[in-house]
Amino acid sequence: MGSLGYKSAMVDLSHHINAKSKARHPSPLKDIIKFMGYDGMVSFAGGLPHPSLFPLDQAKFECLSPAASLTADRHSDGQNKDDVLGLTFGRGSSIGDLDLTQFLQYGSGAGNRQLLDLAKELTERVHSPPYEYECLLHPGNTNAWAKVVGLLCEDDDYILVEEFTYPSAQALWIPLGVKAVPVAADAAGMMAKNLRNILMHWDERDRGARRPRVLYLVSVGSNPTGITISKERRREIYDICVEFDIIIVEDDPYYFLQYPSYGSSVETSSIPKPIPEFLNTLVPTFLSMDTQGRVIRLDSFSKTLFPGLRLGYFVAHPVFTERLLRATEVETQDPAGLSQAFVLGLLRKWGVDGYLTWLQNLQLQYRTRRDWLLDAFHAHFDIVPAEKSPVPQAQGLVACIKSAHDGQVKQPVFSFVDPGAGMFVWCKFYFDGVERFMQIEGAANNRDPEQDFANELWQAWATELVLLTPGSYYHAWQGPEKMTTSARGADPRTAHFRFSFATPTNEEINSGVERLAKVIGRYWG
Amino acid sequence: MGSLGYKSAMVDLSHHINAKSKARHPSPLKDIIKFMGYDGMVSFAGGLPHPSLFPLDQAKFECLSPAASLTADRHSDGQNKDDVLGLTFGRGSSIGDLDLTQFLQYGSGAGNRQLLDLAKELTERVHSPPYEYECLLHPGNTNAWAKVVGLLCEDDDYILVEEFTYPSAQALWIPLGVKAVPVAADAAGMMAKNLRNILMHWDERDRGARRPRVLYLVSVGSNPTGITISKERRREIYDICVEFDIIIVEDDPYYFLQYPSYGSSVETSSIPKPIPEFLNTLVPTFLSMDTQGRVIRLDSFSKTLFPGLRLGYFVAHPVFTERLLRATEVETQDPAGLSQAFVLGLLRKWGVDGYLTWLQNLQLQYRTRRDWLLDAFHAHFDIVPAEKSPVPQAQGLVACIKSAHDGQVKQPVFSFVDPGAGMFVWCKFYFDGVERFMQIEGAANNRDPEQDFANELWQAWATELVLLTPGSYYHAWQGPEKMTTSARGADPRTAHFRFSFATPTNEEINSGVERLAKVIGRYWG
Repeated sequence: MGSLGYKSAMVDLSHHINAKSKARHPSPLKDIIKFMGYDGMVSFAGGLPHPSLFPLDQAKFECLSPAASLTADRHSDGQNKDDVLGLTFGRGSSIGDLDLTQFLQYGSGAGNRQLLDLAKELTERVHSPPYEYECLLHPGNTNAWAKVVGLLCEDDDYILVEEFTYPSAQALWIPLGVKAVPVAADAAGMMAKNLRNILMHWDERDRGARRPRVLYLVSVGSNPTGITISKERRREIYDICVEFDIIIVEDDPYYFLQYPSYGSSVETSSIPKPIPEFLNTLVPTFLSMDTQGRVIRLDSFSKTLFPGLRLGYFVAHPVFTERLLRATEVETQDPAGLSQAFVLGLLRKWGVDGYLTWLQNLQLQYRTRRDWLLDAFHAHFDIVPAEKSPVPQAQGLVACIKSAHDGQVKQPVFSFVDPGAGMFVWCKFYFDGVERFMQIEGAANNRDPEQDFANELWQAWATELVLLTPGSYYHAWQGPEKMTTSARGADPRTAHFRFSFATPTNEEINSGVERLAKVIGRYWG
Repeated sequence: MGSLGYKSAMVDLSHHINAKSKARHPSPLKDIIKFMGYDGMVSFAGGLPHPSLFPLDQAKFECLSPAASLTADRHSDGQNKDDVLGLTFGRGSSIGDLDLTQFLQYGSGAGNRQLLDLAKELTERVHSPPYEYECLLHPGNTNAWAKVVGLLCEDDDYILVEEFTYPSAQALWIPLGVKAVPVAADAAGMMAKNLRNILMHWDERDRGARRPRVLYLVSVGSNPTGITISKERRREIYDICVEFDIIIVEDDPYYFLQYPSYGSSVETSSIPKPIPEFLNTLVPTFLSMDTQGRVIRLDSFSKTLFPGLRLGYFVAHPVFTERLLRATEVETQDPAGLSQAFVLGLLRKWGVDGYLTWLQNLQLQYRTRRDWLLDAFHAHFDIVPAEKSPVPQAQGLVACIKSAHDGQVKQPVFSFVDPGAGMFVWCKFYFDGVERFMQIEGAANNRDPEQDFANELWQAWATELVLLTPGSYYHAWQGPEKMTTSARGADPRTAHFRFSFATPTNEEINSGVERLAKVIGRYWG
């Protein structure tokens, strides 16, 4: 790990590695491995089972080609022949597209070398990071994040997160006594000035913990908010992270699911675009602007191929990947072999260009679904721009009760930002003036009327056979004393719900929003 | 989790769950999942990608049948047709042996329900545990052990282990400040009276930590010692664990690789035996005698099918599996889907009886390899029973320099116990009287002459193109001040090496042992 050949002068970031991670030692067995390759060596040193005794000789996969026509109701048996592509993996190098044997055996922890090379090629192509990074396979972003917490966080630390954040990421660190420091966002993502304020005025005594060192972000199509951090905002956030020595963990499963805005004139018929043109439409990642190696990027095939693979990869500074590899050796070992073989075989057959074509194909599918949901919003509500709405502090668009006559004062129900990526629309509901809410709020001993009314609303929707995810699931965890709407400092008389548009059909979406509007009509009157 | 239906009165073991594991909360999303199944429900609540957009339509596997003839040099293309069996997995329930769709999607954390049922069926059949246990899938025993440490151990705890233990298991907990308490073993395994002594005389002040609560065992064909704990010894150890409230972690990947003793008259032609007869030859597990639910069993398909699956399962008390599931949700999620599908498909096609037949087939293969190694020992050394050898304190058999004449005093080199299971032979070398060793020992400032000479010997072997694993890799970690032979309290003028017989051919084994003997001849003179 000399300094020669580095694309950019890296700063020393090793002080970010926590005490437990520092205490990991490489397995002494590694010393032996280099001898094993000697010609004529008889090794009694390995502990591996004999590959001739693995009861799998051949695997064949029938896959889609990158530009296959996708429809929600497609059936594999009715698939157009041009859309289908076969992969055959045998035992031995001469059989099929890939020698399966190595994937059936124990691996080294880092993952298959050729798959890592492909991950690097893809990383160069898409992000072209300005420093000398390394890639390391992992079994999905859930585990990757667990390993990063194990690498960077001490017990009782604070972690910087978006105001509304992914609950499983939090659930991992809550038992460590770690708390979130939520940073407010607007439609362009986390607000850099708020981030800076928090860091500048951090009071160790008051907070009872050192200044945060980790910023966790789902920076494209965030779950739950659907927000993508803009290029300019990213630049500002990165600079603040340099100033305050913060490591950015870029958990980015939705990166390739970025869409033109709803109702825009961008033609779907121009798909697939030439690859460079496609890549140009994507917001630059934090990794792509990282001159210091302080971004740890979590990449995953869960949303782009399928989640059951449990396969993705870290892109990070070698000082971090080396420690992550030590953790991998004792915590998980290599990701599953059939997953590695499948992805390597598929990406080789498709080529990196083919994969990037597939991603455009996928992008169009999810964009269409996003449009279905927003179409339904327009069909069942009056949609007005926030600044022209009765809630001028709202962002994006406001859905109001559909009025019979133009010119009538519109009654706002919820605001939302057209999600430029991902699978979610995040809606902020306004309860002010809703009779039932005012009743709950007026009752004695009411700890959290917003949450109580949100629960009632959720139940009323479920009774009408439509399910949303309550926004409370995504509140940044600031400790048990900061759970109510007022204690969190959230806007009074509001609450959030998350819509996912990934799964239902157009018809389901439309009738779901219709049912929703019916219940809303009852409450908003 | 009512008390009705439990096979045996369980004791309350919840105090074994550590503070961090206690602090895990179930995901609130679970509350929603029960609504999702309602007829006609439109769900905007899920966050799953759409299964029609997964680019895998069909998977076909060519597998071996349970009684396939196995040889080390078999080629998949030259396989006898009767030995081959196909599995086809399609999308949709009508296509092939299994509907692939569910395995491509995110899972629940616990693993596929049908695969769990099979794990239970197998557990009942083989272990018939006397209490009401649960099964939970995990991605391999490495991760399973990491989760168990995360469940039971506090920082700076002590863990009870065999005197020589699996290094990766230790490497996991060394960074937590956890230390090992090694318990001495004889040929029947860990000595119960030593275990009892340690627990009875545990001095919290002196040790600086509470009495150990966890006993980690590879109780069949232990890595590295090859020792299998006898049935009687297991009973004694279990009773001590009840007396001192210890949780037994039974890491048992080699359970089905148990062999008749070397040179015994048990015929190989009687394979496969009827299943009950086969099961009767296997030593009863700790799980099978666990009336209280204090055994956490780690089962794995790595040694019985192949390691690349990264798939196994916990068998444990529901109070533990519930917490392990919470950890699974945020640390790893379900094991990889293709692995789950493959194992479910294969075990269904084979049947549980077929799997137990396959295991006998496998057992014979590894037994043959064990015999090859012991044959080579007999060919290149004079093997005498320990009690008739010049090192009467030795156990099992002693390999001596081959003497030209009968009746000559034999010079002992190493002792070993015929491994009744697993993949390893553990050899204790005797350096007393070896000129080069005495020279090293006599030199000034010699911290660990045994280790120094063992290193020199290892290098000399490697130069002659034969590799062993140094015994030092397997020393129980008692802290940096207890690393030398004398500080560990090990027998002076001895050191261990581990032989693995799993991989080399008969010819390689024979020439490897010949090379070894040549170097030994030079040193032992």
